[in-house]
Amino acid sequence: MILGALAKQEINWLKSNPPAADNVQEDGIVMSSRVRLARNLSNQPFPLRADRILQLSTMDKVVSAVQSINLLSNAYVHKLNDLDKIDRLLLMERHLISHEHASNINGGPGLVFTRDETISIMVNEEDHLRMQVITPGLSPKIAWKTLNEIDDGLNEKLKFAFHPRWGYLTACPTNIGTGMRVSCLMHLPGLVITNEIERLFNGLTRVGLTARGFYGEGTKPLGDIFQISNAVTLGKNEESIIDDLGKVVNSIIRYEKGARQKLLKDSLKEKVEDNIYRSYGILSFAKSIETEEAIQHISKLKLGLSLKMKLAVKLDSIDQLIFTIQPAHLQEIVGRELTAEQRDATRAELIRKSLIN
Amino acid sequence: MILGALAKQEINWLKSNPPAADNVQEDGIVMSSRVRLARNLSNQPFPLRADRILQLSTMDKVVSAVQSINLLSNAYVHKLNDLDKIDRLLLMERHLISHEHASNINGGPGLVFTRDETISIMVNEEDHLRMQVITPGLSPKIAWKTLNEIDDGLNEKLKFAFHPRWGYLTACPTNIGTGMRVSCLMHLPGLVITNEIERLFNGLTRVGLTARGFYGEGTKPLGDIFQISNAVTLGKNEESIIDDLGKVVNSIIRYEKGARQKLLKDSLKEKVEDNIYRSYGILSFAKSIETEEAIQHISKLKLGLSLKMKLAVKLDSIDQLIFTIQPAHLQEIVGRELTAEQRDATRAELIRKSLIN
Repeated sequence: MILGALAKQEINWLKSNPPAADNVQEDGIVMSSRVRLARNLSNQPFPLRADRILQLSTMDKVVSAVQSINLLSNAYVHKLNDLDKIDRLLLMERHLISHEHASNINGGPGLVFTRDETISIMVNEEDHLRMQVITPGLSPKIAWKTLNEIDDGLNEKLKFAFHPRWGYLTACPTNIGTGMRVSCLMHLPGLVITNEIERLFNGLTRVGLTARGFYGEGTKPLGDIFQISNAVTLGKNEESIIDDLGKVVNSIIRYEKGARQKLLKDSLKEKVEDNIYRSYGILSFAKSIETEEAIQHISKLKLGLSLKMKLAVKLDSIDQLIFTIQPAHLQEIVGRELTAEQRDATRAELIRKSLIN
Repeated sequence: MILGALAKQEINWLKSNPPAADNVQEDGIVMSSRVRLARNLSNQPFPLRADRILQLSTMDKVVSAVQSINLLSNAYVHKLNDLDKIDRLLLMERHLISHEHASNINGGPGLVFTRDETISIMVNEEDHLRMQVITPGLSPKIAWKTLNEIDDGLNEKLKFAFHPRWGYLTACPTNIGTGMRVSCLMHLPGLVITNEIERLFNGLTRVGLTARGFYGEGTKPLGDIFQISNAVTLGKNEESIIDDLGKVVNSIIRYEKGARQKLLKDSLKEKVEDNIYRSYGILSFAKSIETEEAIQHISKLKLGLSLKMKLAVKLDSIDQLIFTIQPAHLQEIVGRELTAEQRDATRAELIRKSLIN
């Protein structure tokens, strides 16, 4: 465990009111925006086909190229095999690496990320490079501007595999073309409570978008938080993909706001408020609580704040709390491995303290 | 609704530390003791066989006899048909009348009870008279002393049906003989949590005792509160019945204390404390709560106090609260009929206020 300082650091891409032009703070509905590019070195086998030696050579090339990029000059570089499983889990909990990358212990998995965690590059995940920029609120254009700059800089040094007809080549055909995935992390409790979420998700599929869980692909939603992202990476340029996602996300914001208006109607209002206050009561007094249950209750407080209920918490700290109560965070913060029971007790304590402050 | 003042009055037989010789305050385990006698006028049909005229004449005779008894000189007298259904429900909630008597609207159901509610007489329930004395804590002997005195006084005036071989005659053969039922209202959360309660209840049956629900025979337990009473009224004198019940109740107190000791053991302690604090949190913040759920959580606080947990409530007010949050109480307190939703909201508010005070 060597990442305690990181665990204690606030997540910058959750901070509201960033100085970003296309950012619209919609009652915390859009928590963050993320753009990632999948890139591979030309004339090199993909990581899953490369042995450890080849993977380490890829890592060396990436690290050397990174040093020439201004935006990445202060970045941390980690070989994941040098980190223990709690450190790797922490990186996943902070959305710096994928679930798969956290458990990838063969070959030479690597990670480069800036001190503010907004820019990161997974090396030797499914592709040689998975680069991402995460920014607060609804701001995929801001994220894309930065990522595009990094992509251009690295391409000069690394020569990415590119086919004139198919675009950027990737290990999995679902990423070919732009290699781009753009997503927004959205808090949609209104649509969940009013049972409109299923219909919305069915609609997304028809416009080439998809809804994923809290930790991305193949993970389940927690606390009514979903990743809305493009499903198709081919046949559109990057700007169109971002524009199209932005339009749909704006529609979802409107739907969610409409659903929250319904929650304020007489018959539902008392039930919803009761529900939120009960979550507040449980979080204020529980002595032991599991991650999933905690996130569900915290999500309720987040909804309560947007409904202007009087709760002694701030939206910013609520968002941070969703991340810091995760298992690896707790263990990094206390500086030692904990049993499940100890984690549940530590989690409850951390939540109680953060509600008092 | 004319019993608002009664609804607002504290229940005297729940107050701890009464000046009673045989009372032992066992961490609130025994909430109250009750002795009742079933009596019938001789040469008169039982109430279920009597028409309205005959029932009213019984009521008149009882009321006239009552006036000659010192202990009852200030008693209230009610014909239940003059009360609306909320008033009658209030009397049941305060354990002054049975579930059956509350819904008895044919004939001439009546009630006589002292201002402190410790002595009451149901008239024209199943028997002509059902007299009871309720006292706080473990004190059936105190209750019996008072009730015996009243029984003697009334017998002089009313001449109760008595058979030299079978004893006092009653409408149902399960009450024949002494006509006596003695019971203790016991809070047994320890035995419930440790799953020992079933075995205890099976044992009770073998020694001629029985466990009943919160409102007595045919009602279900609420908040781990049970009425432990004698099942047999025949073949023993009153003192033996009381002695035998007292012995068993003292054993149950020991079992319950033993169970609570188990709850303080490492593995269970955190779970139990978490559970109690969650109840505290829910009661502190809920905006709507049903009677059963509320009593379950209040019961947890009562347990918490006995486990020396820091909770901003007093045992006395906890016991009172279990009674005042009942539906008729709430409506009498606010002075008007409420819908189920309104009751749930009023109940939650009353609980929140009583936890703050």
